[in-house]
Amino acid sequence: MPRLTAIDRLTALWGEVQDLTAAEQLLDWDQETQMPPAGHGARSDVASTIAGLKHRALVSDALHDSVEACADEAEEGSVLAAQVRAARREVVRARAVPEELARSLAAARSRGFAAWRQARSSSDFAAFAPALEELVTLRRRQAEALVGLLPAEDGAPTLYDAMLDEFEPGARAAELEPLFATLRAELTPLVAAVAEAPPVDESPLRGHFDPAAQRRLGLHAATGVGFEFDAGRLDPAAHPFCVGIAPSDVRLTWRWQDDDLRPGLFGILHETGHGLYEQGLPAELYRTPAGAAVSLGIHESQSRLWENHVGRSRGVWRWLAPTLRALFPDAPAAADVDRAWAALHVVRPSLIRVEADEVTYHLHVAARFELERALFANEVAVGELPGAWDDLYRSMLGVVADDVADGVLQDVHWSHGMFGYFPTYSLGSLAAAQLYAAAERDLGPLEERFEADDFATLLGWLRERVHRHGSLLDAGPLIEQATGTPLGAEALLADLRGLVAEVYGV
Amino acid sequence: MPRLTAIDRLTALWGEVQDLTAAEQLLDWDQETQMPPAGHGARSDVASTIAGLKHRALVSDALHDSVEACADEAEEGSVLAAQVRAARREVVRARAVPEELARSLAAARSRGFAAWRQARSSSDFAAFAPALEELVTLRRRQAEALVGLLPAEDGAPTLYDAMLDEFEPGARAAELEPLFATLRAELTPLVAAVAEAPPVDESPLRGHFDPAAQRRLGLHAATGVGFEFDAGRLDPAAHPFCVGIAPSDVRLTWRWQDDDLRPGLFGILHETGHGLYEQGLPAELYRTPAGAAVSLGIHESQSRLWENHVGRSRGVWRWLAPTLRALFPDAPAAADVDRAWAALHVVRPSLIRVEADEVTYHLHVAARFELERALFANEVAVGELPGAWDDLYRSMLGVVADDVADGVLQDVHWSHGMFGYFPTYSLGSLAAAQLYAAAERDLGPLEERFEADDFATLLGWLRERVHRHGSLLDAGPLIEQATGTPLGAEALLADLRGLVAEVYGV
Repeated sequence: MPRLTAIDRLTALWGEVQDLTAAEQLLDWDQETQMPPAGHGARSDVASTIAGLKHRALVSDALHDSVEACADEAEEGSVLAAQVRAARREVVRARAVPEELARSLAAARSRGFAAWRQARSSSDFAAFAPALEELVTLRRRQAEALVGLLPAEDGAPTLYDAMLDEFEPGARAAELEPLFATLRAELTPLVAAVAEAPPVDESPLRGHFDPAAQRRLGLHAATGVGFEFDAGRLDPAAHPFCVGIAPSDVRLTWRWQDDDLRPGLFGILHETGHGLYEQGLPAELYRTPAGAAVSLGIHESQSRLWENHVGRSRGVWRWLAPTLRALFPDAPAAADVDRAWAALHVVRPSLIRVEADEVTYHLHVAARFELERALFANEVAVGELPGAWDDLYRSMLGVVADDVADGVLQDVHWSHGMFGYFPTYSLGSLAAAQLYAAAERDLGPLEERFEADDFATLLGWLRERVHRHGSLLDAGPLIEQATGTPLGAEALLADLRGLVAEVYGV
Repeated sequence: MPRLTAIDRLTALWGEVQDLTAAEQLLDWDQETQMPPAGHGARSDVASTIAGLKHRALVSDALHDSVEACADEAEEGSVLAAQVRAARREVVRARAVPEELARSLAAARSRGFAAWRQARSSSDFAAFAPALEELVTLRRRQAEALVGLLPAEDGAPTLYDAMLDEFEPGARAAELEPLFATLRAELTPLVAAVAEAPPVDESPLRGHFDPAAQRRLGLHAATGVGFEFDAGRLDPAAHPFCVGIAPSDVRLTWRWQDDDLRPGLFGILHETGHGLYEQGLPAELYRTPAGAAVSLGIHESQSRLWENHVGRSRGVWRWLAPTLRALFPDAPAAADVDRAWAALHVVRPSLIRVEADEVTYHLHVAARFELERALFANEVAVGELPGAWDDLYRSMLGVVADDVADGVLQDVHWSHGMFGYFPTYSLGSLAAAQLYAAAERDLGPLEERFEADDFATLLGWLRERVHRHGSLLDAGPLIEQATGTPLGAEALLADLRGLVAEVYGV
């Protein structure tokens, strides 16, 4: 038997880590889409055990030694060096945290989701508060264990930075603040100007839309842009998400409104964007450290790109028109592209982030970014979150929810203990705009292609520039290499100003 | 912190084993009901890793030592003694098998299922043969490792006995042979006599039955008899099964025929019987060794009891009649109990085991019992199975499948490497008949109760006599305690003779 090389040993051990991640993802997906309600208690035990075993696999000396043996052999810039970088990140983080905490967090997440779903359906924040309190406590403990790993050259990192770093490696709150300040400074006057302009007619996209027909529309759109249902599926969920159990098993979820076509369709296109990324990850690197998506910001760039730049384009609506006519013969205006297009770009402060327009969306994110930092800086207590939420929405968006289910309980993230995730939505939008502009520079105008049922050209470009890299490149270099410039707000702001000018004339 | 007792330590370690079993069950359920087709490759890796970790947990010295510490403390007949017995069985079996084999078997099972589904849908045994060959080889290796654990006082146990023992602890082929000989000797003349009698009119249960309405009927029946959908669900599958991920999370599956009401409804009632057992397992023993079902024979006793003794009774059909009328207004005869009842007890040799009548059913099982023994005695090769299958069906049932999908490829079991499982179906039928007779002795006639929507009385009796014991009693003593006599064929044969006499007058 030939002697195993260092990368063979690393790959064998990492395969086990990845299999446990896949099991965790299936357990989560099942809990959110299939599991009977009484199953929650047993499920949190299972989640805890799998998390403990994954932790044990990550902190094993055998894995540590195989990573370091690879490090000794790796030439700078090589695939092996990228494998070492990606593996070390996970291993070092795991070794900083006790197994007991990893297990407790998994169990608390599972319980947290059950409590959140119950609390949201009964509009009762108090029913969620104890589970949320536990999650905040555990995540704080985890952040305390991890914060020392962050480089301190640009000032002392905070606990919030430690959480942010989990979703967007290298991101720091202090660097995101000016970005969000720019977005607020530029977008708030745009929103105010729109408020003075005559309203857009949204009736073409309103009416009664049968959910089964909406599902067919969503499947048509997702299949059309290139999602492979042979390696994926679509299910209803309380809060839409996408999970990539493997590149060959990617699961989208959605929800819908009977009286508005947009939440269902754009929710599906958003998750389809995530799903295309997962299906495009390098199959040959599956079950290796560099085989996974590089960051959530990059993930969100793919979802936002397909949702907004593609999904809200005239080209796509011309392509969709025959299907819309066939599925919704009673709502003919939905298929009238000229009438419908403006309604796709309505700007109006609203309550629900995932249904927000492209402009106000970032104010939703900014509010969460502010609130999460205050929570982990001990400036806001868990019990004060509903009031603090409403205050921020009042000041930043000028709207307040009557119902806590449309306020602080609207998002699933905190129920999973995912604090520090939200900023990646705006990072993703910036990256999406920059990538789309770069794609049009390379490929020429894309809308005509969409109208002609050609999504493969854009998808091929994204596969080549983004998907196939997995984690071989970090997010920053990836964007810079793909677009020619570092990540910035210019492309997004130019887009949004252009849309508002065209739709509202302001 | 108080010192942990031996049972505390055992329970903590067993909890992890049980959580891994739950994860395995979810992976299997998902693979058979939800997973997109391209996911099979990645899934077999995950199954292998989870099986390996479960094996490692089972063979750990910590678990072994905690079991033996409990053994030192356990008084004969105590719950602790039952925990030791149940734990030792699993631990000793796991320690006899290398981890590599446990992993290979799990991966081969996952691949085997994918190959079987593909082969069955294209009626191509050759497409399944390599995966089956691998499963036979691995199961043979496993049996070779396990056979030495079986007591040898009643003659040298065979490899087949080692597999049988996994599903029905203590069962031996040499003891089952006379039982199957009795069933064949008694039932074959009954089948022959029926063949001479005028046929029964089956038209009341034939026609066109909308699958959505069939599903509603099945849900109504399952809910009516006491299955809790708050702690369970029902999904379509290529081959119906039930999986108890936890007593609070029990999943039924089904399939149906558009032109016959029976396969769907009785399939659901069969799986519901399994599900009622799983939901009735002692919640306080969940995640302990004695918390699980005791044997597959006992499991099948519950499925066969609810399918046949309850489901095919006049009382249930009177209870179902209004629902049948509402769901199938175009098939009024289905709700005509007097006309439909005989069609529920048609005896006719047929091709598909799960749709077979109560009499010929055991000939289907006997054929598999004979074939499996021949396979593991090297008297039949994998490639010869289709021919051997047809020969046995011809000689025992007088029918031969035109299509291999209705022949040797009809059952899912071998694709999971489950050789030695089939005999438990007949054992279960014997136990079901004996339990039902005992219940009527204790409770009086049950049919009137069913008609009056009272299933709780029978279910309560089964909960008390069977379900709540988990594995605290072995299968033999359990049946003897519940019914007053050891397991035998008399009750079943008396039932079947009575039914044939009433329906066919022979």
